[in-house]
This record gives sequence, C-alpha cells and structure tokens, in this order.
Amino acid sequence: MSSPAPWPALRATYHVTASTNYDLDARVESLLLEQTVELPRAALRDKFVLDNIVGRLASLDPLEGETHRAVIDFPIIATADDPAQFLNVLFGNSSIQEHVLLADFALPSDWPGRKKALPGPKFGTAGLRKILNVPERAITSTALKPIGLSTERIAQLCALFAQGGIDIIKDDHGLANHTFHPFRERVRACQKAVREANSASGRCSIYVPNLIGTPSTVLKQLQFAQDEGVGAVMVAPMLLGLPFLAEIVAHHARVPVLGHPSFGGATRIAPELLYGKLFPLYGADATIFANFGGRFAYSRATCGKLAKALTQPEIPNLPPTLPMPAGGIKYHQVADVLSFYGREVVLLIGGGLYEAGDDAALRARVEEFVRNVEEFK
Amino acid sequence: MSSPAPWPALRATYHVTASTNYDLDARVESLLLEQTVELPRAALRDKFVLDNIVGRLASLDPLEGETHRAVIDFPIIATADDPAQFLNVLFGNSSIQEHVLLADFALPSDWPGRKKALPGPKFGTAGLRKILNVPERAITSTALKPIGLSTERIAQLCALFAQGGIDIIKDDHGLANHTFHPFRERVRACQKAVREANSASGRCSIYVPNLIGTPSTVLKQLQFAQDEGVGAVMVAPMLLGLPFLAEIVAHHARVPVLGHPSFGGATRIAPELLYGKLFPLYGADATIFANFGGRFAYSRATCGKLAKALTQPEIPNLPPTLPMPAGGIKYHQVADVLSFYGREVVLLIGGGLYEAGDDAALRARVEEFVRNVEEFK
Repeated sequence: MSSPAPWPALRATYHVTASTNYDLDARVESLLLEQTVELPRAALRDKFVLDNIVGRLASLDPLEGETHRAVIDFPIIATADDPAQFLNVLFGNSSIQEHVLLADFALPSDWPGRKKALPGPKFGTAGLRKILNVPERAITSTALKPIGLSTERIAQLCALFAQGGIDIIKDDHGLANHTFHPFRERVRACQKAVREANSASGRCSIYVPNLIGTPSTVLKQLQFAQDEGVGAVMVAPMLLGLPFLAEIVAHHARVPVLGHPSFGGATRIAPELLYGKLFPLYGADATIFANFGGRFAYSRATCGKLAKALTQPEIPNLPPTLPMPAGGIKYHQVADVLSFYGREVVLLIGGGLYEAGDDAALRARVEEFVRNVEEFK
Repeated sequence: MSSPAPWPALRATYHVTASTNYDLDARVESLLLEQTVELPRAALRDKFVLDNIVGRLASLDPLEGETHRAVIDFPIIATADDPAQFLNVLFGNSSIQEHVLLADFALPSDWPGRKKALPGPKFGTAGLRKILNVPERAITSTALKPIGLSTERIAQLCALFAQGGIDIIKDDHGLANHTFHPFRERVRACQKAVREANSASGRCSIYVPNLIGTPSTVLKQLQFAQDEGVGAVMVAPMLLGLPFLAEIVAHHARVPVLGHPSFGGATRIAPELLYGKLFPLYGADATIFANFGGRFAYSRATCGKLAKALTQPEIPNLPPTLPMPAGGIKYHQVADVLSFYGREVVLLIGGGLYEAGDDAALRARVEEFVRNVEEFK
C-alpha cells in the first residue's frame, strides 16, 4: 500500500478477479503500469516518470468470491487534458483484460484542464426543462420508428405524438440518411409537424433528430438541424466516439444533446472479428492486437484466426493487411512467434526491448531482435 | 427457419446463451428485430418494412452447453451505406445484451455502397512493405515510451531504434499532446531522427506518430505529420470512433494507418459508470439507458445508481442531467417506473405505444401515457 499520491489524481476503481494472491498482485501491478507507461517496472529508468506518471495503489480490498476492489491513483497530467487520452488513462489497454472491470472513478478537485478534456453538459436538466416548459413533473418521450417508413409517415407519427402531448419525440437511433427518409427531408417534415402541433396546443414538445455518420457528416447534420430549429439532437457516443461528443458539445451544439447507448457493449465482439475484420474494413492497414502468452492472454487459436482474417481477407476487393501482435512478446521468442504467424506479420516488441537496461544494452538487444527476424527461415 | 432472404444481406453470426428453448426463441426474435426496426413484431404494420427491413433467421444450431449459433440476414439497405449505421445494424443495441456475442459477419457480394460505408485499407500489406522496402521477411516494430520523457529523449530512442534496424517505430498509444513531449515538437524530432538514420543505413525505417484527440484535433495532427513526411500514422479506432477511422482513410490519409486496440473492451465498464458518469462528462444533457425489467435486463440497483449519477452528479460544477430509461417500458407501468425514479426522469416508451394498433388506438394510448405522467403524484 503506498502513501497518498503527491499530485492531483484521477482515482479509478477496478474490480479485479484472480484466484491466487500471486495473480492478484500481478494484475494490480499491471493496472498500475498499463494505463500510462505501459512498460515493466524494471524498464522504468527515468525518475520523473517513476515519480509523476506511474499509477499508485490507494487501496486493495476483497469483494466477493475471487473479486477484489483495487483503487488506483493516476496523475491527472497523464491525460494531457484531452478527451481521448482521458479514456486511455482510465481504461485503454486494461479494457481488453478479461479479469478487469472498471467500476468507478473520481476526478481531482484541482484540475484546471477539466473543461478542456470533458466539457460536461451545456444544458442539463434545468436547460431541458426550460426548453420543454416542464418545470416539475416527469418528462414523456417516444421514438419515431421503424426505419423503412416513408418520410411522410414518420412526420405523421411525429404530429400524432406532439398532438398527444409527448414532450420529447426523438428519431429511432437507427434512422440514418436512408433513401426512404433522407435526413434533411425528415428533419424538415418532423420539425414542421411539431411546430404546428405546439401552435395549436400551447405545449413545447420538441423533435430530436438522430445524428449519425462520420464526424464531417454529423457536423453537417447538426448545423442543418439547428438551423431548422430542432429542440435537441441525439447521438450514440460509443458508436461515434466519446471524444467526438466532447467536440460537438464544446464547439458546435447550440441545443441539448441526448446520449444513446448503442454499441456500448463493444467488447462482446469476438476479438478476431473486431480486430481482424472490422478494423481493416474501416481502413486500417495494420492492426495491433494482444498476442498469445502475453499480458492479455488471447489464445493461440484466437490469434491465429485474427491474423488469418487480416492476411487473407474473405471480403472481395479488400487487400491483405498486416497483423501486429504485441503485449509482452520477449525478444528471444521471435522464432516461436514467427513460426506461428509466418512472415506476413509485424512483430511489435516494446517492454521486451526496454527492459534490457541502459542504452548500450538496449542497442544490443535491438540489434539481436532485428537479426533474429532478418535471419529467420 | 425462413427461406433465403430475397435481398442483398449483411449476414451476422451471433452466439446466444439461453437455458431454455423459450428464452432462446425470445432472444433470437429480439435479435431479428433489435438491430433494425426495434419494435415488437406486433407493432409492425407496414408491409415494406416487414418484407425489406426486418432481419431473417438463416440458421440456428446448438454449440456447446447453453450456447447456440444464430445466423441472421439483415437487409444491406438498412445500413444506408453509412459507416456508423453499419455498426448499428451489426451490433448496436444488441451489444448491450449480456447473453449475446457477435461472432462473425459476411457482406453481400452485390453491395455498390460498400466502399462508401467501409473504405477498407488504402495501402494494405503490399503498400506498407513497399514503403518499408521489406518485400518478404517479417517486419520489426517497437514503441516509443513511456509518456513523461522529454522530447529529446524520445527522439534519442527513436534514433537508436532506427539505427538498430527496426522497421516501424511507433509512438506509444499513450503519447498525446503532453507538455513533456508536445505533438508537433515530437513528430518533427522523431522524423528527423529516422531520416538521418535511414540516410546512413540505406534502410527505410518509418516513424509512426499516435494521433489522438477529438476529430478536429486529430485531423490537424494528421496534416502536420504528413507534411513532415511520416511513413504511417496510428489511431485507436475504438477510442476515436470506428466511423472516424473510415473518414480519415477515405478523405484525409496519404499514408498507411495502424489500428490500436485501446478501449476495445468498453463494455467492461460498469453501466452506471459508462452511462451515468462518462456520457454526461463528455457532454450529454440526457442519457438513454436500458431500464430494469425490459429487454436488456439491467437490475433495479444498477438503474438506480445510474439515474442517481445523472441527477445528482458527484463531480463539482457538473450540472444534473436527465436519465431516460427505455427498452420495453409498457405504458401501464408508468406509475411503477415513476415511483422508482421520481420526477427527474424522461420516460422513453416506443414499442409500448406502437403496439396499440392503428393510429386511433395509438393516439388513445399516447394520451393515456401523457395523462398518467402528468397526473402522477
């Protein structure tokens, strides 16, 4: 147990499952290192880094069964006051470790960069209630669906809901820019329906379009929707990226933003599929993944399938791309790893080189690693 | 078992766990509906939608134990040829269901919009090998780390690796725009180190910076790095959003893109934390989540914690925001749900309204729902 961290800290609580004390210690040590330095402690030679970057264990207590609660402080400076890097420090690589659950976190009270990293809601409850003119009671909401209806029919439903007195009428999260109900046509028609119903009823119902697509598409949709006068917009942050939500709120949205949970369970995708198929389809030329035997413990079978998906894509016209197994490969394991993957591979070794020692030792190990790969038959 | 789908289909394979045939049938039916129409079958009244939007079961086979393999065809038109909507159809809401794993998918052979939705890699193995001038052997790689070193030290390490003959020298994925090693300074210094080492050795090692931040930040980093002549760039698509990767590759990248797995296990975040704390911190004014008792089966305890995190944020200066429980609330359960959440809530009911029947019945049910909420004490 270490003393309180001497710097402003992001305090993260993890539930760690381990069947022996040996495993538990190793997994906690891994959490301390993985989110910032991503190196074995033996390879940390810089005093500033050791004192100011590595996580510190605040407490470790048994929960139930084989699960323990580990509370860890990370220096807030490691986040660089950046929305994406904040997630990296909180639960980047460790999210891949099956025995770890992120249970909670707390921000330091003295963090001048908080608003830059995490803008927080612009309107919140008070702002939404004001827009809806519903100061006290619970708020009603429904969704326009299903996809595949005509724009006219969706607008009819929107009118019906607004006339019936529903406060928030939102697009289903599956309404994209489909040919049956193109975004602009739909927003214009639904917004008109709500406006007319409100004029008649005196209520302040709002229509909330679903923004979906790549960032440039979503920003165009947002601008159009705001110009049409919508009362709020909806995005699915796990689908579009949490950092993008921060940018939308900090720089572009003039209306409240509703968050949708779609794709929130992304890890329930088989790794060979997420990394082997989805990453290249979305454009990656090489994909880093957790090698077998390393600190993330995918099986050889999973790694084999993943590598095959990348190097021999089933999808027509999709060029082969390179697997980059990583995460604890040792420099002397090169032959084993190459025998497994063949030569269509990028061998990514970090800690296994750094732990050699000083620069002379590091240089020697680098040269041995390079030679081992170049000479492998 | 239905006949082959009459339209070009995205064929998805899920592993579904269920202890009884009754549960299995219900979970498979839910998969058929959840990713596109997100309505109970009884509420589907439009023939075009029934014929052309709803998923179709291609096969259902036992795997081991209580797990079954369900192969489902979804109409490719449901994806709207959009990178984000593709994920919605493939594994949007279903990703939240604990008994479902996405195991595989196949694209239809006749999908003119494929490149628009999913650009695929621009360089692939062949392009990377050409840049590196490594036609056949396995490729070597290491990472510049840890965060917290000075730019000068990172550039020294980069030089050492390039001189030692490593092909791909990449930033650690935790190197952001930190004050210790600001992005532009680091890219310039590392790129210079690699260039000089290559001149001396005749090799074609590359330096690969880590792009991280919101979309506008990342696009500026990309442009700077490309102008400096880097050989490739790295992004963590799960952190930044897979759709953003597609946009980077389709419209901005002139160099290969390496994919990093960070944040790939996002579901291993406690739901009350992901939806209750992270969504509002990133700017959501109201957050939709799976209500207890509905088709996603969070517990009352989880929902209570989630709602409390939104309505009574612990973080100073973060305004309260609104919980929007959803996913199978019935209109007659309003009192129960309101008793649980109190009035700081948005009641989101979709299917529970739509299944009323025709528009007259729907209107009556909407009015009853609105009245129940307005009159709740």
